[in-house]
Amino acid sequence: MVWDAWGIPSEHAPLPEKIRTLLAQVFGVSGESVTRRDEGSVPLRTSALSQAHLAGLSTVVGPDQVRTDHRARLLHAGGKSTPDLLRRRLDGPQDAPDAVLFPADHDQVLAVLEYCTEQRIAVVPFGGGTSVVGGVDPARGAFDAVVTLDLRRLDSLTDLDPVSGTATLGAGLTGPQAEKLLAAHGLSLGHFPQSFEFASIGGFAATRSSGQASAGFGRFDDMIQRLRVATPGGTLDLGRAPASAAGPDLRELFSGSEGTLGVITAVTLRVHPVPATVGYQAWSFPDFGAGAAALRSVVQAGAAPTVLRLSDEAETGLNLARAGDIGGNPVTGCLAITTIEGSAAHVEARGAEAAALLTAAGGTALGEQAARDWEHGRFAAPYLRDALLDVGILCETLETATSWSNLAELKAKVTAALTDSLAGQGTPPLVMCHISHTYPTGASLYFTVVAKQLDDPIAQWHTAKHAVGDAIAAAGGTITHHHAVGADHRPWMTGEIGELGVRVLRAVKQAVDPAGILNPGKLIP
Amino acid sequence: MVWDAWGIPSEHAPLPEKIRTLLAQVFGVSGESVTRRDEGSVPLRTSALSQAHLAGLSTVVGPDQVRTDHRARLLHAGGKSTPDLLRRRLDGPQDAPDAVLFPADHDQVLAVLEYCTEQRIAVVPFGGGTSVVGGVDPARGAFDAVVTLDLRRLDSLTDLDPVSGTATLGAGLTGPQAEKLLAAHGLSLGHFPQSFEFASIGGFAATRSSGQASAGFGRFDDMIQRLRVATPGGTLDLGRAPASAAGPDLRELFSGSEGTLGVITAVTLRVHPVPATVGYQAWSFPDFGAGAAALRSVVQAGAAPTVLRLSDEAETGLNLARAGDIGGNPVTGCLAITTIEGSAAHVEARGAEAAALLTAAGGTALGEQAARDWEHGRFAAPYLRDALLDVGILCETLETATSWSNLAELKAKVTAALTDSLAGQGTPPLVMCHISHTYPTGASLYFTVVAKQLDDPIAQWHTAKHAVGDAIAAAGGTITHHHAVGADHRPWMTGEIGELGVRVLRAVKQAVDPAGILNPGKLIP
Repeated sequence: MVWDAWGIPSEHAPLPEKIRTLLAQVFGVSGESVTRRDEGSVPLRTSALSQAHLAGLSTVVGPDQVRTDHRARLLHAGGKSTPDLLRRRLDGPQDAPDAVLFPADHDQVLAVLEYCTEQRIAVVPFGGGTSVVGGVDPARGAFDAVVTLDLRRLDSLTDLDPVSGTATLGAGLTGPQAEKLLAAHGLSLGHFPQSFEFASIGGFAATRSSGQASAGFGRFDDMIQRLRVATPGGTLDLGRAPASAAGPDLRELFSGSEGTLGVITAVTLRVHPVPATVGYQAWSFPDFGAGAAALRSVVQAGAAPTVLRLSDEAETGLNLARAGDIGGNPVTGCLAITTIEGSAAHVEARGAEAAALLTAAGGTALGEQAARDWEHGRFAAPYLRDALLDVGILCETLETATSWSNLAELKAKVTAALTDSLAGQGTPPLVMCHISHTYPTGASLYFTVVAKQLDDPIAQWHTAKHAVGDAIAAAGGTITHHHAVGADHRPWMTGEIGELGVRVLRAVKQAVDPAGILNPGKLIP
Repeated sequence: MVWDAWGIPSEHAPLPEKIRTLLAQVFGVSGESVTRRDEGSVPLRTSALSQAHLAGLSTVVGPDQVRTDHRARLLHAGGKSTPDLLRRRLDGPQDAPDAVLFPADHDQVLAVLEYCTEQRIAVVPFGGGTSVVGGVDPARGAFDAVVTLDLRRLDSLTDLDPVSGTATLGAGLTGPQAEKLLAAHGLSLGHFPQSFEFASIGGFAATRSSGQASAGFGRFDDMIQRLRVATPGGTLDLGRAPASAAGPDLRELFSGSEGTLGVITAVTLRVHPVPATVGYQAWSFPDFGAGAAALRSVVQAGAAPTVLRLSDEAETGLNLARAGDIGGNPVTGCLAITTIEGSAAHVEARGAEAAALLTAAGGTALGEQAARDWEHGRFAAPYLRDALLDVGILCETLETATSWSNLAELKAKVTAALTDSLAGQGTPPLVMCHISHTYPTGASLYFTVVAKQLDDPIAQWHTAKHAVGDAIAAAGGTITHHHAVGADHRPWMTGEIGELGVRVLRAVKQAVDPAGILNPGKLIP
């Protein structure tokens, strides 16, 4: 992953001319890309680690695996939120970890935590570096130095159990690496968040990730059978059965712990055979409310497809425009995408049941193509964001979830908060939304907002983000459905779990990380 | 619920003559029932509460709601495990709480906890009193006195949201009370554990209960949307959305906390329309292995029925004998029960998909009757246990869970441990087993063991229980899939979650219950 944008350079592309023209018309931007800085010329803050510390860390993980070079530090400077990327575009020194460590295994992670506890060095666990909430910022907290612990060498598939459908995967495996290892055995995890191509197994667990096929295969936390966690206090091996009544489920305490309570080093996950058949079907609904009710009916009936999403009117229009359908056969209303994956019999049975429910709820089947188009382009949006940022457009996403009965109000409140805040700053936005994940009792809302950048786009977005965070909290939504908390959502955590909930988290942290070295400034207020 | 047996007197019945004859033949017992003690003549340990304490507690919950009379104390003397019931049959004083409190609402529970923290009085939260693991024993721990907090007055349905399919239920509602309140709105919870008729909503949450329809409607913890918990440290309101990435899921810390971390006072649960249709189908498989593989295939395909269970050969024989089929049409092999509940379309679609998979896996459809018979008698087994205990038969159940690949070995090890331990004591048992709950990655095993009682049946069972607990741990099972930990499974908790896991639980307890008044001696080693 490049240091100042999403993904790999070969996928970077300037905006097509017609989009530049559109942006000029709508937002009054010139459409000219800025020139980004040369990686080698970016100043970094000076490493605060002493030679003694570097020698000590080298003893733990090996001298080749303690990196303090400019490139290694720059590539671990933080995540990929829009403010992160805007900060990378600023002149002046970039924040960066004082060293990057590449431990080989669980025991080395344990030893690093022990050393850093003794020496009072902050530790930031790092998977794919795709956080969009400041979750991997190299913050020092109360310490003089911070090291980032890159887990990419924990990349093994172990303990495959095809009968039970479980596989133990190293925390450092990326989504594609994990799928490739599983595919060699005819298996798949089926976890496809937008960060799939770069994010890691450990990161998925640490952030309660949720993939685009969550209606069928579940959230990542649903898939977790066992967790292995290294903490300054020792090792936790959690999960002895598919389900248990042996007290609180401690997996659920470390799932979503975002590196503040321990370093997840291996995850045993539910896997399934690579689907023999995938059925694609796009649907149109007259409006968002009708579409949401239709999705609700199919999920509540226990007939959910594997992928189930619904774009609102604004996103539907833009998606179809991007797919090249401008001037073609216009589809009004809202577009829904379904895929159903599994055996031919399952796809047929579930497809018929879901289709009947969606049709009864006012849906019109559009055929396969729009669903296939969506799948084809589903990891591309972050590249588009980079191209937009380069031409002076502010583009960011955010998400929340609530009950079905509160969904329309939450959507309206979030849209209003974004619109009011940005319009109030003189940059009226375009706000699009889709239902990204569905549950019997509610759904998530995923928003994309686009506006013209002000001279200080970081402050501009900070204002809007705080307005929308407050609006989400006031409207009864969760501050994050699948992006996690990191540094950016921390101001809303006390509202989310209460003062006593925060005290509980602090008590757990004190038990496993008494020195407080793990990922300071994240998650726990 | 009567004090010394399960359930209500009108359901108590002596064993049928043919079963007495069978027991005489197999186990050499006379078949004559013992005469149980008169409730009023049972000596209780003297209440350790001072008049000042009783006055103080009366101020909190009202004088009528602090009960120290013989009957109230006796009815809260503990749960309903076989050792519990055998202890009730012993001469000598019974253990009992020093008082029983009946708080009216959440705030009164909070005030009781505050008072008992100040006065150093242990508190045992009490729902239906159906624990079979010593979870509601009136243990004083390090304190001089213990009060039992009976939550039956927290019996309201509030915040019904039929669109989202959620309902907030008071912790003290029993299963039937909750279903009745929901049925008035055309809704159902669908949580039917064997304790259903007496156990409470709060108890289900506190113990991670799992009902007989878990394949369709999920475990109780799956149903939980929000939890309200009163602790000595204050109130927790947990759960803001159907799913969230806002850090660890603290609901999962208080679900299964068994009254040691707080008192659950209200639970918001996922509910569904009362099923319009129920499809019943019984199946026969040549043997347990074939049946287990069949259940696995249907669950892993995402085509699980609502109820899905499989009896082993021994249980199949006995169940059919009990159903009056002796001498009728003999069914060899293993009996599986399925029900599919929902709309007619769902029952038809899911039924066809499940039937095809079960048939492909070697199952023979037996028609509806055995499934209906099972449903009709599904809450009756504890009454049968009482009748067996009365004629000198030891009868107890226990359960565990593991992955599909480990299921046969775990079953064999548990059966061997029970058989060896009891045969070694001169009382060879009959051991029966069924798969009670299924998951894509594994299943639970529910064992029933029957043997002749020795002169000290409590010690006899204690020996067997410890042997089988060790066998479960050694074979990789969880010490409990749905009975919870209480006092009886506590010796295996450190093995289950590790030393550090125990330290985490203790840290949480210290944060919410610094004086340690809540349910001493349970769950946390």
